Amino acid sequence: MDFTPDPHAQELVASLEEMMREHVLPAQQRFEEELDASDDHWAWSRVPVLQELRDEARRRGLWNAFLPGEEGAGLTNLQYAALAEVTGRALDLAPAALNCAAPDTGNMEVLAQFGTPEQKEQWLAPLLRGEIRSAFAMTEPDVASSDATNIATSIRRDGDDYVVNGRKWWITGAMNPDAKVLIVMGKTDPSAERHRQQSMILVPRDAEGVEVVRGMHVLGYDDHAHGGHAELAFHDVRVPASNLVAGEGEGFAIAQARLGPGRIHHCMRSIGVAEMAISLMCERVSSRVAFGRPLSEQGVIRDWIAESRVRLEQLRLLVLKTAWLMDTVGNKGAHTEIQAIKIATPATVEWILDKAIQAHGGGGLSQDFPLAAAIAGIRTLRFADGPDEVHKNSLAKAELKRQAAARG
Amino acid sequence: MDFTPDPHAQELVASLEEMMREHVLPAQQRFEEELDASDDHWAWSRVPVLQELRDEARRRGLWNAFLPGEEGAGLTNLQYAALAEVTGRALDLAPAALNCAAPDTGNMEVLAQFGTPEQKEQWLAPLLRGEIRSAFAMTEPDVASSDATNIATSIRRDGDDYVVNGRKWWITGAMNPDAKVLIVMGKTDPSAERHRQQSMILVPRDAEGVEVVRGMHVLGYDDHAHGGHAELAFHDVRVPASNLVAGEGEGFAIAQARLGPGRIHHCMRSIGVAEMAISLMCERVSSRVAFGRPLSEQGVIRDWIAESRVRLEQLRLLVLKTAWLMDTVGNKGAHTEIQAIKIATPATVEWILDKAIQAHGGGGLSQDFPLAAAIAGIRTLRFADGPDEVHKNSLAKAELKRQAAARG
Amino acid sequence: MDFTPDPHAQELVASLEEMMREHVLPAQQRFEEELDASDDHWAWSRVPVLQELRDEARRRGLWNAFLPGEEGAGLTNLQYAALAEVTGRALDLAPAALNCAAPDTGNMEVLAQFGTPEQKEQWLAPLLRGEIRSAFAMTEPDVASSDATNIATSIRRDGDDYVVNGRKWWITGAMNPDAKVLIVMGKTDPSAERHRQQSMILVPRDAEGVEVVRGMHVLGYDDHAHGGHAELAFHDVRVPASNLVAGEGEGFAIAQARLGPGRIHHCMRSIGVAEMAISLMCERVSSRVAFGRPLSEQGVIRDWIAESRVRLEQLRLLVLKTAWLMDTVGNKGAHTEIQAIKIATPATVEWILDKAIQAHGGGGLSQDFPLAAAIAGIRTLRFADGPDEVHKNSLAKAELKRQAAARG
Amino acid sequence: MDFTPDPHAQELVASLEEMMREHVLPAQQRFEEELDASDDHWAWSRVPVLQELRDEARRRGLWNAFLPGEEGAGLTNLQYAALAEVTGRALDLAPAALNCAAPDTGNMEVLAQFGTPEQKEQWLAPLLRGEIRSAFAMTEPDVASSDATNIATSIRRDGDDYVVNGRKWWITGAMNPDAKVLIVMGKTDPSAERHRQQSMILVPRDAEGVEVVRGMHVLGYDDHAHGGHAELAFHDVRVPASNLVAGEGEGFAIAQARLGPGRIHHCMRSIGVAEMAISLMCERVSSRVAFGRPLSEQGVIRDWIAESRVRLEQLRLLVLKTAWLMDTVGNKGAHTEIQAIKIATPATVEWILDKAIQAHGGGGLSQDFPLAAAIAGIRTLRFADGPDEVHKNSLAKAELKRQAAARG
Repeated sequence: MDFTPDPHAQELVASLEEMMREHVLPAQQRFEEELDASDDHWAWSRVPVLQELRDEARRRGLWNAFLPGEEGAGLTNLQYAALAEVTGRALDLAPAALNCAAPDTGNMEVLAQFGTPEQKEQWLAPLLRGEIRSAFAMTEPDVASSDATNIATSIRRDGDDYVVNGRKWWITGAMNPDAKVLIVMGKTDPSAERHRQQSMILVPRDAEGVEVVRGMHVLGYDDHAHGGHAELAFHDVRVPASNLVAGEGEGFAIAQARLGPGRIHHCMRSIGVAEMAISLMCERVSSRVAFGRPLSEQGVIRDWIAESRVRLEQLRLLVLKTAWLMDTVGNKGAHTEIQAIKIATPATVEWILDKAIQAHGGGGLSQDFPLAAAIAGIRTLRFADGPDEVHKNSLAKAELKRQAAARG
Repeated sequence: MDFTPDPHAQELVASLEEMMREHVLPAQQRFEEELDASDDHWAWSRVPVLQELRDEARRRGLWNAFLPGEEGAGLTNLQYAALAEVTGRALDLAPAALNCAAPDTGNMEVLAQFGTPEQKEQWLAPLLRGEIRSAFAMTEPDVASSDATNIATSIRRDGDDYVVNGRKWWITGAMNPDAKVLIVMGKTDPSAERHRQQSMILVPRDAEGVEVVRGMHVLGYDDHAHGGHAELAFHDVRVPASNLVAGEGEGFAIAQARLGPGRIHHCMRSIGVAEMAISLMCERVSSRVAFGRPLSEQGVIRDWIAESRVRLEQLRLLVLKTAWLMDTVGNKGAHTEIQAIKIATPATVEWILDKAIQAHGGGGLSQDFPLAAAIAGIRTLRFADGPDEVHKNSLAKAELKRQAAARG
Repeated sequence: MDFTPDPHAQELVASLEEMMREHVLPAQQRFEEELDASDDHWAWSRVPVLQELRDEARRRGLWNAFLPGEEGAGLTNLQYAALAEVTGRALDLAPAALNCAAPDTGNMEVLAQFGTPEQKEQWLAPLLRGEIRSAFAMTEPDVASSDATNIATSIRRDGDDYVVNGRKWWITGAMNPDAKVLIVMGKTDPSAERHRQQSMILVPRDAEGVEVVRGMHVLGYDDHAHGGHAELAFHDVRVPASNLVAGEGEGFAIAQARLGPGRIHHCMRSIGVAEMAISLMCERVSSRVAFGRPLSEQGVIRDWIAESRVRLEQLRLLVLKTAWLMDTVGNKGAHTEIQAIKIATPATVEWILDKAIQAHGGGGLSQDFPLAAAIAGIRTLRFADGPDEVHKNSLAKAELKRQAAARG
Repeated sequence: MDFTPDPHAQELVASLEEMMREHVLPAQQRFEEELDASDDHWAWSRVPVLQELRDEARRRGLWNAFLPGEEGAGLTNLQYAALAEVTGRALDLAPAALNCAAPDTGNMEVLAQFGTPEQKEQWLAPLLRGEIRSAFAMTEPDVASSDATNIATSIRRDGDDYVVNGRKWWITGAMNPDAKVLIVMGKTDPSAERHRQQSMILVPRDAEGVEVVRGMHVLGYDDHAHGGHAELAFHDVRVPASNLVAGEGEGFAIAQARLGPGRIHHCMRSIGVAEMAISLMCERVSSRVAFGRPLSEQGVIRDWIAESRVRLEQLRLLVLKTAWLMDTVGNKGAHTEIQAIKIATPATVEWILDKAIQAHGGGGLSQDFPLAAAIAGIRTLRFADGPDEVHKNSLAKAELKRQAAARG
């Protein structure tokens, strides 16, 4: 076991940190203003300052850093993890600047792994070049979609086409008109075995019958800087059969494959969020005086800072180990750890943000600091990709089985 | 000791519950639409449906229920508490419909208790009639204002006038143009004894030099249904000396006097919020099925429901006892209990809301349920009127003193 | 609603507090020494100092204060609650001095309510006079006995006798040779309806076939000052049929009836334990200096004290309300509240004790303060009479039903 | 970064696990019986079965595994950590069998690092051979000894001797008559600079004036299997000046140096304790049935198991990283991490033990499972070597300084 950071990753981190300091952080306000001045409330991807940052990222070799192999920057999960953490310190801008923003990352992975040459040509290539965006349409409003068998959207074969009907919500990014393609999960065969009923299909956002119903709010945010979270309705949407990803019945397996890297990314960025929160908390309490002493000398505040550091160090190591497992034994071998970080990350990071907010008083919940928007985003991770309770249940089942085997 | 509910309060509660069922809850959507259609984003008090509800409240004798004595409905704190809880189930509309919304309630109390006949005539009377609104300007952006000695706003005597200079924020209701009067806390004598430096003065919102800088957001919400939370700047604002409330140096004492009832009201309404959350949680989990069973049969969900009920019952009793103490031994005699409920209420209610949200999945954080807006509001209570940490510190000091006395 | 304490209870409390100060607390060390010097390690009831204290309790009219009606002191549950809290401040001695110690209290209630005149004459009378002790044998080692249908002990009719076979553990008080009578729960008819299978029967501790296997430890304590916690085996123990309590199939109902008052007593005494812990914590931190300041001025310690007070006040009110409900609507009507305090009390009191211990450093866990023994005792309440998890599950079920009814 | 376990450590772990399975675990009951049958209640080190296990450990090359360098087994901290975890599964016997039990380990380190050749010859050599035991006398009953300046024991130079006066408690192991040597911390120069006042001196346990006052209890345990926790009084105890360790004023520095490895060992063993608890919890809930289903299928229990696993994985990684830091940058460079694991470990392990106990019902607190004794031991870690609150305060101060430096 060797905790020495990877030298190549360290170089990239240094370059990214320089870019953050010199380019990204100073651009945050301009991004907000340009987005507000934009013609389309949701079209964050067209904002000029973002194009400049993307050029900078390309110059530094940070473009598509999330994607292993030739199509991406050739980094391991462990190497990328160190970068993803840094981007978490400016969640609105940094991941997008590196073309490493969810849900595009997961969608590109799906296309890279399961797409046909034609699908790659049509959708993956422009995504990798940052010309278009995408969305992933799985969650449904009317059922507990953590249980994949509940999926009610239908994908019905009809001649050379498939016809999609159903309703989805919380489709992040889909309010953005640039999200040209939607990966839609639905059932092709409700009578098949439990995990073979579902398929995924590529639906152009401008296909006939695709209705963008509304944007969902997260607490009071519409998240337009991320393309919002759309409610979508599919009314007899017809797409060519060649739009199916992999094959009929592969939907569940693709969803599972997509989750691993997605969670690592979310978790590492969230750790960056927590580091940002600790920095702000320390800065605030060092300058704020009440009852004759800086807040930084009050015992309860010190307790928060210490707990924050102690919890975050533990969490980071588990996320890094999970990345390493994915690199060495694959996503399947890392299944339990992937669940574990999905459970552990929001719990820890939300706690730290809550304390940082409290240290800021009213300002902490306001638009003056990034803490309020951050806690709203982190809060969603407790049910995104299935509520924590489902994952805990599953992780416990695996532990019980493992222990029973050990008892013989 | 007798836990039988007060019969008069019970009658009023029954009437209010009927009004909620038949008038308030059905009006919530109309209120939102009319507010959105309003000329002024912040002028919630002009919305037609509200006028109708106010008439209903007057008819039922629920108007100004918060105010004891002749000027109000003549209820004790304990009696009003039962009503306040019910209004918490529709926080946007019900308190306003009864003319029992903060910060007007506290401001009316201040005027009723400390105002001159002229001040009462000019400001209290139209407030009691619901013709104008008001705001209370204490918190400042640049200092930890939980420590009253930090207040930086100056109120300087100049001939027959006072001249106000300073900056305030989180001034709830002050974005509303109908908030005709501001009660402003500032220092008249920075050289006086610690708690005699501050005074309060009445400043018309349209006085020259009053600048409404912007509205503060709470987790993405601008709270326009409550008149927002303004940042205000006072640039050489000149008002007649007769606008001073009570006398020079009375500011701290008035602020203390204002806090007691205000907290009881907040706490009781928050308990209503929690009851609403428990109801929604129970309804949701009874109808939602995952992995073959309704959520209501899953152990962890049951644990949340039980914990919610057990914690809320304890909290309610402490709030009611505090109301009773205020009625029997006065605000000063109830000082420790008032601090205790200020600490206990957001902790318990935020916990319950968090679980209710989790039981709703993504919907829980969205605009589709009142839970997200509720948790944002409740979260502010952890630092409104000073952060919990300050109150815990003070409560502990009192306990240590009491215990030392008991040891002799 | 009226929170004024009951004047009669207040008088008795004053008398009890005087007795605590002048007699009980000064006797604690002597009790320990006499118990150590005793011939029988478990025979706490024979210790001389206890006899003196009992005489004092009788003189003051505090004897059998727990028992309502003529047989006892004629107090309501609410009145006795105030006394029980005071006895919690010296758990080893005070309840016993008043003949108000578990499990005798519950057993006397069972006999008073369900016993035949002969059973009362033989067992209740000497118990009320404090001449003998008793035990209640329900929990079994081999099954989850929170589920009454799991009870494996058999009570088989055989002519004019019943024959008892089975194994019990955690039978508090039964190591004491003075525990002359055991109330044993077993099954008379395993084929009956779920809650009609069980019966209770009186078994003299010296009956043939009763084996006292060993004393169970609680975190290293053998609790000999309470008669320990015995593991018992019943080998064909034959008792006359007239020893049956109430009738065949009444066991479950008797157990339920026994629980209500028992829990109130436990909870009120536990609140007294918490008050003792707060007192000790305050005393300790006021005198202990580290890094130049008394611990009482350190923020985290203040936070503990404030939280302790805030939580305890809420808990006490719920326990008192439950006592009031039992007095006014009966044990059945107070069912939910009885469950609620069973859940809430150990959670709160254990938390307070943990903090008081931490404030004492190593001493807190040692024999030098009553905190360590107290936390061991309180910890057992989390599964005594069924684990909290079972009670939460049941309480949630009732809440879900209530909410469904309210929705109509 | 590479999470592959060290192959040499893995081999030793495999050997140790075999030894645990075949020798240590089967010997636990015999150890207890032989200890009970022993002439001296405290002389655990003389028990026959232990000698056999020690031979086994020597045969396997596991003897003195804790000690790096030639004098020990030549393992790094990281390598030993893996072994220490395994010994945590049988805390009473396994560390002692490997001659790796506290406080001897820390004392041997002190002697190895700071001892003169004569001191090593006299005390270190027999300790390394397992012929004698030792104790470390730092904590004092009358002061908060987490603040080293509070130490009240005096070590006064008098001719060729030092004379020791003072009172110590919680001196683990010192009730054992085989603890031939005490390392005593006291003040040689109260007027020196804050951290140069203290010195350490070797005091034979049988020196004139050493009084063994009594054994301290931890909850209800006297921990005789670890030589208890003695209260000691030093009445004009005279030892030759050559018994001083290092030099006058070096006491604080030696104490600091001693802490690092000691904490790693404690933490790794505690992780083994937690693993043992998870195993027992899983076994219990798989076999126990209530209300028609095994406990292992109940949601709350699953939640406990999942949380236990998720928390423990994070903790272990931080402890291992700390061991690696000590190996690569030294104890001083690992200062913050050493504090972090000291804070994190008892919090996590106590939580897991509490849940495992609850899953066992009454049995969990009793002598029938190792859980009760384990939680008592783990609880002490929250104030051993200074309460967590002191360490959090210090860790936060370092974080604040680091953040201030980063802000520039």
